[in-house]
Amino acid sequence: MAKISESHPRRDSLLARQKLVDAAERGLLAESAMIAHGRGEAYDYLLGEQTTESSLLAIREVVARLRAAARPVISVNGNTVVLAGENLIRVAAVIQCPIEVNLYYRSPERVAGLLSLLSKQREEVRNKGAPEGYTGDWFDAVGSVRLMGAEEDGRIEGLLGPRSICSAEGIGSADTVLIPLEDGDRCEALIDLGKEVLVIDLNPLSRTSMMASVTIVDEVARASEALVRETITGQSGPTQWDNQRVLRDALDTMAGALERV
Amino acid sequence: MAKISESHPRRDSLLARQKLVDAAERGLLAESAMIAHGRGEAYDYLLGEQTTESSLLAIREVVARLRAAARPVISVNGNTVVLAGENLIRVAAVIQCPIEVNLYYRSPERVAGLLSLLSKQREEVRNKGAPEGYTGDWFDAVGSVRLMGAEEDGRIEGLLGPRSICSAEGIGSADTVLIPLEDGDRCEALIDLGKEVLVIDLNPLSRTSMMASVTIVDEVARASEALVRETITGQSGPTQWDNQRVLRDALDTMAGALERV
Repeated sequence: MAKISESHPRRDSLLARQKLVDAAERGLLAESAMIAHGRGEAYDYLLGEQTTESSLLAIREVVARLRAAARPVISVNGNTVVLAGENLIRVAAVIQCPIEVNLYYRSPERVAGLLSLLSKQREEVRNKGAPEGYTGDWFDAVGSVRLMGAEEDGRIEGLLGPRSICSAEGIGSADTVLIPLEDGDRCEALIDLGKEVLVIDLNPLSRTSMMASVTIVDEVARASEALVRETITGQSGPTQWDNQRVLRDALDTMAGALERV
Repeated sequence: MAKISESHPRRDSLLARQKLVDAAERGLLAESAMIAHGRGEAYDYLLGEQTTESSLLAIREVVARLRAAARPVISVNGNTVVLAGENLIRVAAVIQCPIEVNLYYRSPERVAGLLSLLSKQREEVRNKGAPEGYTGDWFDAVGSVRLMGAEEDGRIEGLLGPRSICSAEGIGSADTVLIPLEDGDRCEALIDLGKEVLVIDLNPLSRTSMMASVTIVDEVARASEALVRETITGQSGPTQWDNQRVLRDALDTMAGALERV
């Protein structure tokens, strides 16, 4: 793709696209990954390509729940690692939880490729130093983030085939899972197992959005940046959360964008 | 991808996706083609995955204008050929106009690959026989559809680089161009040249949708089926067309989908 000028109004969006095209060429993404990203682009456009007030509340709640959890895990797929891997490693470093590569269209090659990319990202994150406001030992905190997903020794009950595979010590025994960009069936299966499921999903009408415990309706890279800030500065505990309200707010914002013309 | 059952409620959408994945593997699509398709999927979902009353009026108007044109051309890109090639050949056969492969991200390989695919589709369309209601000599009508785009002997004024290239006898000298899935800059350049630009675009807010002479807000495969029917049965001539109205209707339908939950 062509070089994108610093001043391009849609620079973030074009850079994200370019990262995905590169990752696809390296075989890191499922066939449907680019189409899924395109759907997200359309919803993000309607959302105004910004983190809304209501998403910010959801981000706060997600961090509170991750912090309060006994065994939190961050589950990532290809698009997530490519677009938001570094910031999710920062979140994992502060929360002190593992990251698990878990793919709907699972292949050993892609799992291995994404773990290797995450491992490089972890080095980067370590070397770039602590985010503003972090007061602990950054080098140790980042170094201790476990990267899981190769084990295949756990199963998500209620699912069949490769998409049921998980790490026994990761998603298998987690009480709370942050899963950006999750599929509806899997979101449902995890909820049925009694887990807290925290998602990032640009489509407020998706089954995932509607079934999750907390839904951040936001673009995954932007949301992850906000998650890092909140993980470091946030103090509040989990609340009685009305997830329907944030979905309603997102729908209103999008409908407004369509009507404002 | 997995086999899709005959009864799957989203069969058309999944089949379209599979066709694009296959075409991408054969190098027929630009890098951004899958992302563009994903964006379309999101808007189509909001549209209810159906041809609305208002799109049907636009389809009627497009056919009337193609029929009234002195030199009509149908311009196609990779996604269009893959998703709607056969039906657009049928339209071209009835109208008796050429089809030109014209790519925003132009490469000689993709132009050649798409011309070869179109040529196979033309054979298929010929052998499958005339659509219901057609009374002429189908074999001759289809056989005489010229497939253009390899010539590179024309230029679209107002554009720079490979995206300005066209066929002098095709888009170069056309008075009316049907371009499903067109880019905004090119739509504008063609309008500035005084041509009628008829488009199919699922995003009613895109520059293409807003600048075109007539916009069919519909999925390209579905719209092309309707175009074939209208080309054969339609009788009406061009009208004083209010394109803002169809865009307004599409926006209302989509906003309604977001509010109906």
